Amino acid sequence: MNETIKLLTSHRSIRKYREKAIEEEKVSLIIEAAQSASTSSFIQAYTILRIEDREKRNKIAELAGNQIYIQECPLFLVFCADLNRHKMACEMHGTEMAEGYTESFITATVDAALAAQNAMIAAESVGLGGVYIGGIRNNPEEICRLLNIPVNVYPVFGMCLGYPDDNPDKKLRLPADIVFKKDEYATEGDLERLGKYDAELKDYYLDRTKGMRADTWTDMMARHMSTVQRPHMKGFLEKHGFKMK
Amino acid sequence: MNETIKLLTSHRSIRKYREKAIEEEKVSLIIEAAQSASTSSFIQAYTILRIEDREKRNKIAELAGNQIYIQECPLFLVFCADLNRHKMACEMHGTEMAEGYTESFITATVDAALAAQNAMIAAESVGLGGVYIGGIRNNPEEICRLLNIPVNVYPVFGMCLGYPDDNPDKKLRLPADIVFKKDEYATEGDLERLGKYDAELKDYYLDRTKGMRADTWTDMMARHMSTVQRPHMKGFLEKHGFKMK
Repeated sequence: MNETIKLLTSHRSIRKYREKAIEEEKVSLIIEAAQSASTSSFIQAYTILRIEDREKRNKIAELAGNQIYIQECPLFLVFCADLNRHKMACEMHGTEMAEGYTESFITATVDAALAAQNAMIAAESVGLGGVYIGGIRNNPEEICRLLNIPVNVYPVFGMCLGYPDDNPDKKLRLPADIVFKKDEYATEGDLERLGKYDAELKDYYLDRTKGMRADTWTDMMARHMSTVQRPHMKGFLEKHGFKMK
Repeated sequence: MNETIKLLTSHRSIRKYREKAIEEEKVSLIIEAAQSASTSSFIQAYTILRIEDREKRNKIAELAGNQIYIQECPLFLVFCADLNRHKMACEMHGTEMAEGYTESFITATVDAALAAQNAMIAAESVGLGGVYIGGIRNNPEEICRLLNIPVNVYPVFGMCLGYPDDNPDKKLRLPADIVFKKDEYATEGDLERLGKYDAELKDYYLDRTKGMRADTWTDMMARHMSTVQRPHMKGFLEKHGFKMK
């Protein structure tokens, strides 16, 4: 197992950071790594906002559901899916952008995610740790107002980075043979695999919490997925240029 | 610059492969790395299909716009955003999944992308190269039929992997100061930055193609983005459980 694979497979979300600032050379490397990710048809459809302003940080932390580590982390980034530059390019060349299609929503969102994952790995490789913040989609309109995010751009997620001051356990993932299938999406045996995973995860939580928590994955998912998550996203995206045509 | 950052920043898409098969231990590491990526609320909402069947490979290559490397690559993966297991979990616990929301479409798509980027990096770290295949969204309904992909699951992209038999140049990315902004989405100076990038990219293409190609980024984007891309996606996704509520 080489260094990179060791790094990838030992990922944990880090939500507590030492007070130490991140060196600017490291920030540059993180951005360079992000920009080096694959991009659909070379569209490079993302923008990364770095939020230093204290008031904005505090406000984002509040809007994202009082996640204190958004205030505390040395580096907070907001990854936006961005089709604004493409609209500029169309205008420069006297054409009109085909706006509001689901497909370009997908390509821009995926572009942002690939860049972000490279940023996360680059950060971890230089001794940092971090966590994705989906909570910025709790109040995306207010986030856009606060950060001056224009139409055809939307904040997909945030990312907190810093020198770790925490050492959480790695979370046990789904069995590989339920996630990785050959030649077709066959589901035979998946119910049994889920049952086995549930039992393992329950043991893991019981052990980690000294008997305080006995969650299973299907139980957590049944609770989480039966609750409507962020139903405002459709309306927000429509207003922001992503009409899902 | 450490090994991982060197790897991340030297990424190129590889479309030609040696005939050498990929060792199964490497495949396992790639999947383990993919599964180690961050996941929104631990939903792990993706499935990776490995397509070995020759007829299916040929058919996918054809459906994706005759991309011959889909047939030729030693390892071809299809990354699906997957909410099917969550529906199973809800049923197991007597609840009903809140289906068809834009938000869960985003989380599942991002989950699949983060896992895929980890897979790509793990692959590159063991000497492989590859390319993302957005072309499987050219005919997503036929891809789903061919691979038995159920409702609440959709193929986001494919990925070809193999030992490189090609050494393309790294493509020049957008200037960092247009992609990476501080405290807000300010656009002052962006037009000039795009102009500078256009000039650099033109030189790069002229040099690389011995004067045969003189594309600029804004010109390529104006052409690409003024054309409607895959307008069937909305209808396909609706039928497949992603109603974008």
